Amino acid sequence: MPGKKYTEEHKVVYFETNVTGRLNIGNLVDLCMLVSTDQSSKLGISTEKLDLMGYGWIVSQNIIDVKRLPVDHEKIKITTQAESYNRYFCYRDFMMEDEQGEEIVKMHTVFCLMDKEKRKIARIKDEIVGPYEGDYTTKVERLAVPPVLKPEEAEITKKYRVRFMDIDSNQHVNNIHYFDWMLDTLPEEFLRTHEVKQFNIVYKNEVRSGEVVDSLTHFDEERLESIHEIRVGDKVSCTAKVEWQELK
Amino acid sequence: MPGKKYTEEHKVVYFETNVTGRLNIGNLVDLCMLVSTDQSSKLGISTEKLDLMGYGWIVSQNIIDVKRLPVDHEKIKITTQAESYNRYFCYRDFMMEDEQGEEIVKMHTVFCLMDKEKRKIARIKDEIVGPYEGDYTTKVERLAVPPVLKPEEAEITKKYRVRFMDIDSNQHVNNIHYFDWMLDTLPEEFLRTHEVKQFNIVYKNEVRSGEVVDSLTHFDEERLESIHEIRVGDKVSCTAKVEWQELK
Repeated sequence: MPGKKYTEEHKVVYFETNVTGRLNIGNLVDLCMLVSTDQSSKLGISTEKLDLMGYGWIVSQNIIDVKRLPVDHEKIKITTQAESYNRYFCYRDFMMEDEQGEEIVKMHTVFCLMDKEKRKIARIKDEIVGPYEGDYTTKVERLAVPPVLKPEEAEITKKYRVRFMDIDSNQHVNNIHYFDWMLDTLPEEFLRTHEVKQFNIVYKNEVRSGEVVDSLTHFDEERLESIHEIRVGDKVSCTAKVEWQELK
Repeated sequence: MPGKKYTEEHKVVYFETNVTGRLNIGNLVDLCMLVSTDQSSKLGISTEKLDLMGYGWIVSQNIIDVKRLPVDHEKIKITTQAESYNRYFCYRDFMMEDEQGEEIVKMHTVFCLMDKEKRKIARIKDEIVGPYEGDYTTKVERLAVPPVLKPEEAEITKKYRVRFMDIDSNQHVNNIHYFDWMLDTLPEEFLRTHEVKQFNIVYKNEVRSGEVVDSLTHFDEERLESIHEIRVGDKVSCTAKVEWQELK
């Protein structure tokens, strides 16, 4: 049986949206992470407490399924729930509901625990995940991962320099910018007329302030699909596969 | 006597902050604008209604005075109040208070009314500003404006391309990015150890998606002062003068 549910309400505001009037995917992920952080605080294991213990959560994958994205002014409910955990991974679900109670977005997220001193992934500790009441399992989920982007298929490449303001108080490049770097490579007319159907993103290596990233994209407009890779030199920072749908 | 007051509460969240843990100036302006928009809706003259009348508000200047910037998780109150208006300008004040009721930030803003069809500044209409109950005055406020940045003094120049996601549902480059383009030119170490004391920004010409802006900066670290200009080619988009203070 999955863990405790926790819900927050949010009203989408204009600066979380783009020209289509819909919530940006990066803002959506930020809003979900905030709800998850708030649940942690409520359960007595805030980010600050975890930090004092020498640990921090890192997200290794998000799979976002979109029925429709909420629009400016829309009131939504965001619910999160720890699903399960094994020795190295915690799986968590997020659900976004509209005012009619219809699920419009869901997200499945894989978290790891980082040992801050060793800068290495740590074994999941019972005292850290216990309060969420997710199930312990020996199984590692076999989640779909974005395909490797072959260099000859990356027909679009843009460079982005990590700016001071891209780093938030968690000392990481904020989610919004990864999504921004990836999606900004696509044609504006396409972005105006389509929205994400599924966004599968895998985080591999962190990007730091002042670094210049290459955003590589393979875009198949016919199949409504794009494949993305963010690199710093030879080092892959994150990969993603996006399925698109026409805006209604 | 100035107009009706309107207040909203807000809890600062991590993605509104930078590495110093403090609210970004661009996010601060966005939060204030949101409160002002919400007041307008409450008074029956929402952005949508104004749009149907053929008008839109544009901000021509913000003068932001910072005692201290709120930090991640901090609960603040934002109050706005129409101060006065004349034939072409509306003056509005914003106050940001902490939980102890201390004023930590204030902002004075100049709005103009844009005739959307003529793409020209319109005369202020009584039926539009009446509900705010600001005073009519024949006086035009003589506000300090940022000094003209002489080309030989602009020792720092960086280029930024306007990205798809920089444009919000109001169809304008969101505030955050103007501040980002200006402040990102300054040395990282300085930004980590200082915060804004006063930010005086004047908006002149709009920047559009796909355009490349030049962000020109004169930085006087000794005087804790920076002068900024955002241009697209020969056209000045906005100018600013920032006074800085050391972070406590």
